[in-house]
Amino acid sequence: MEKLTLIKVGGKIVEEPQSLKQLLSDFSKIEGHKVLVHGGGRSATAIAAKLGIESKMVNGRRITDEETLKVVTMVYGGLVNKQIVAGLQALELNALGLTGADLNYMRSEKRPVAEVDYGFVGDVKEVNAGILADLIAKDVVPVLAPLTHDKEGNMLNTNADTIAGEAAKALSHFFEVTLMYCFEKKGVLMDENDDESVISEITPQLFEKYVAEGIISGGMIPKLENSFEAINSGVKQVVITRADLLNSDTGTIIKL
Amino acid sequence: MEKLTLIKVGGKIVEEPQSLKQLLSDFSKIEGHKVLVHGGGRSATAIAAKLGIESKMVNGRRITDEETLKVVTMVYGGLVNKQIVAGLQALELNALGLTGADLNYMRSEKRPVAEVDYGFVGDVKEVNAGILADLIAKDVVPVLAPLTHDKEGNMLNTNADTIAGEAAKALSHFFEVTLMYCFEKKGVLMDENDDESVISEITPQLFEKYVAEGIISGGMIPKLENSFEAINSGVKQVVITRADLLNSDTGTIIKL
Repeated sequence: MEKLTLIKVGGKIVEEPQSLKQLLSDFSKIEGHKVLVHGGGRSATAIAAKLGIESKMVNGRRITDEETLKVVTMVYGGLVNKQIVAGLQALELNALGLTGADLNYMRSEKRPVAEVDYGFVGDVKEVNAGILADLIAKDVVPVLAPLTHDKEGNMLNTNADTIAGEAAKALSHFFEVTLMYCFEKKGVLMDENDDESVISEITPQLFEKYVAEGIISGGMIPKLENSFEAINSGVKQVVITRADLLNSDTGTIIKL
Repeated sequence: MEKLTLIKVGGKIVEEPQSLKQLLSDFSKIEGHKVLVHGGGRSATAIAAKLGIESKMVNGRRITDEETLKVVTMVYGGLVNKQIVAGLQALELNALGLTGADLNYMRSEKRPVAEVDYGFVGDVKEVNAGILADLIAKDVVPVLAPLTHDKEGNMLNTNADTIAGEAAKALSHFFEVTLMYCFEKKGVLMDENDDESVISEITPQLFEKYVAEGIISGGMIPKLENSFEAINSGVKQVVITRADLLNSDTGTIIKL
């Protein structure tokens, strides 16, 4: 199997021209097949505000009413996605921007209303990776926006971490996939006050031990649970690191 | 050669939910391979206004400064394009939304400043139709937004009629292409005050005669000149009609 590296970056890094330029340059240097998944929440919030639409967040997730859905469709699928695609094309990567509706590569269903009504938010139900894999094999570089569709004519807002995990799992039928989650730290830390205390490798056994000892806590727990789920579903390895360290050995490797 | 129908529709029809629904239904009934090219100017103007950006038009073309470029990238590439793609997916067409940057399928250069500085507007220089043709042969339906890129990292605003004409010409190396321009009339009229006076067929000889006689004038002249240029460049025929008459025989056929 050929190797594929799937990188997920948050909104901030792709929303500032200087950090975006550096990211795309670093990304272009990754050897072999690659996929980029991006956020765009800050831009969405800023443009929503200018349009007089208030952004409401619950548990870090955006409540997506009809007007907000239009904003995220514009900002994630248009503004942020196309700036990245044009930037990669300038670096001689044959980028192709996609939402889940394009090629019907990722279908979701509107999240049922439980304690919270998240509105037009989609939970992923089906990934059609075959046509994506064909394109990747021809050196196309998919650039995935955090949007899906319900195959009934509606776009839906979907978390970029989820898009990355689901795409990585589906593509692992065709490639040996490394999934890299970039966030603001160099990796998972032994001591949250020491940015240099990066744990180089985490196995399920170490994960249980660190959780029991309180070393790993809070939002890092679901992030790592998702990483193990990806590995249990065929992804070769997951790396948690900082975007400017993509081509270094710094970061936390999650493996079985 | 297999047949391909390339339909260009203006902004208005894709910007109102009811007419969009009808258009997509009509479009889905066209037999064989197909491509849809859309505008979105009214939505761009409306959203620009809400964002406090004034829309300036010269000769019917939008002056595209830096902020306006962001708006059209969002609106054409995101909002309008993805609503169409999701709508076609619901009708079982495997739609793929594209700007010129995606797959580098259409490269342009920023228009030189002459009498008017149009800003970030691109004149088409190169169409890479091979990868598009491969996808179309696999029953993918490209949905083309009126945006190109300069291969140097910048998106550029490009007229939808131009996108349609250039795409039709490039795809005529792979398919027998019919290009249909939809506008507000049933076709080219003998009498502009009589909507039923549709000229059923125009050849270059008839065109010269009608222009000399003043029957064809104004904005219809460049539209027809572009149509003849497409035909001279390999497009099988061009049809000018109204969007709700796509599947009828009504309209003006332009042929050699």
